Amino acid sequence: MPEIDVKQKVLAANQAAAAALRETFRDQRTLVVNLISSPGSGKTTLLEATVARLAGKLKMGGLDGDIATERDADRLRKAGIPARQILTGGACHLDARQVDAALVEEGEKLRGLDLLFIENVGNLICPTSYDLGEDFKIVLLSTAEGDDKPFKYPAIFSKAKVTVLTKVDLLPHVDFDVAAVKQQVSTLNPGARILELSARTGDGMDDWCALLEGELAKKRSS
Amino acid sequence: MPEIDVKQKVLAANQAAAAALRETFRDQRTLVVNLISSPGSGKTTLLEATVARLAGKLKMGGLDGDIATERDADRLRKAGIPARQILTGGACHLDARQVDAALVEEGEKLRGLDLLFIENVGNLICPTSYDLGEDFKIVLLSTAEGDDKPFKYPAIFSKAKVTVLTKVDLLPHVDFDVAAVKQQVSTLNPGARILELSARTGDGMDDWCALLEGELAKKRSS
Repeated sequence: MPEIDVKQKVLAANQAAAAALRETFRDQRTLVVNLISSPGSGKTTLLEATVARLAGKLKMGGLDGDIATERDADRLRKAGIPARQILTGGACHLDARQVDAALVEEGEKLRGLDLLFIENVGNLICPTSYDLGEDFKIVLLSTAEGDDKPFKYPAIFSKAKVTVLTKVDLLPHVDFDVAAVKQQVSTLNPGARILELSARTGDGMDDWCALLEGELAKKRSS
Repeated sequence: MPEIDVKQKVLAANQAAAAALRETFRDQRTLVVNLISSPGSGKTTLLEATVARLAGKLKMGGLDGDIATERDADRLRKAGIPARQILTGGACHLDARQVDAALVEEGEKLRGLDLLFIENVGNLICPTSYDLGEDFKIVLLSTAEGDDKPFKYPAIFSKAKVTVLTKVDLLPHVDFDVAAVKQQVSTLNPGARILELSARTGDGMDDWCALLEGELAKKRSS
């Protein structure tokens, strides 16, 4: 089918662009994480809280994918780091060429960082297939979204090195079985790290920041 | 670009299939609603609560789109209505041909209903462009997802005749400005109905059921 041929070509072109980005990030010794979740799982809120904790220690920046509005990049800039919004023109995911173009246009501001956060378009499906040259993918799942999601969206939970359960402060008010989610994630992806946190209360933020710092150290020593 | 040509062809084929479905639904005097939201906004939970209230009055059925698992159709069957799961094989939306094939395969069970619920794949972006022959689209937004979503995902909030704010029982525990959301929806779609409800507590369920019954009566008297 021509639809499938076109998809294969698009993915092959993306893969080439992602490989070039990965080289660049290696040369710059920047750890790059690709954050993927449903709309409203708390990606930007987690990044705001992360910046507040790591601002004195690490040089950070952000790329924010969205269909419309500059809102997420604005929030990161207010939090104190350089950030650029990428509007996808209706597409349900970022691709590597958009990331490359954004980095070229931002120039110095996003060069030579310790940590680059790529906040993907809010979507548990489409971003899964597009490599952005990142070191690893992180999937966020909020406790308000229900505990059946890993098995319903298996591709992203299989691929993400880290699953972050967000909004654990809501646990007393929702039906969400943390153990059931952990079991689904472990079945799909036995090596995955699973963190539980609330950016609002600060619970779990130490482990999250330690994970990022540890991965950066690993990348730089390898 | 070939990508765009293929997309246009796919949408044109979908439109033809949707038009045929719409004829069928008109002949059968069935009201068909296409429910669209992020993963975990509460589509299935809303339908369970709806079936519990309208079971004695209306003949209902469901089609459930997902990437994987039979879970949602199972929940609707347990709630007491015929339902069929449509697994999209990775696609981020249902299309009209999948709906047609599912109806043919289910045969009598989903024929001659008063009300057919089509629960789309959890996604605020992709399902927007695919007409399924429905009478209208309904977008759900949970209060845990943040109050910036209509402007970030303008296409679906512009197209949906009804916006349902779900999980209003969580309002005391989250930052969510209902008035701000209403203003965004009204800006994008001045004619939209906006309902606030909690399927968990039952708040707002009367208005929701009255809306469905009213739309069914309107369809049958026209």
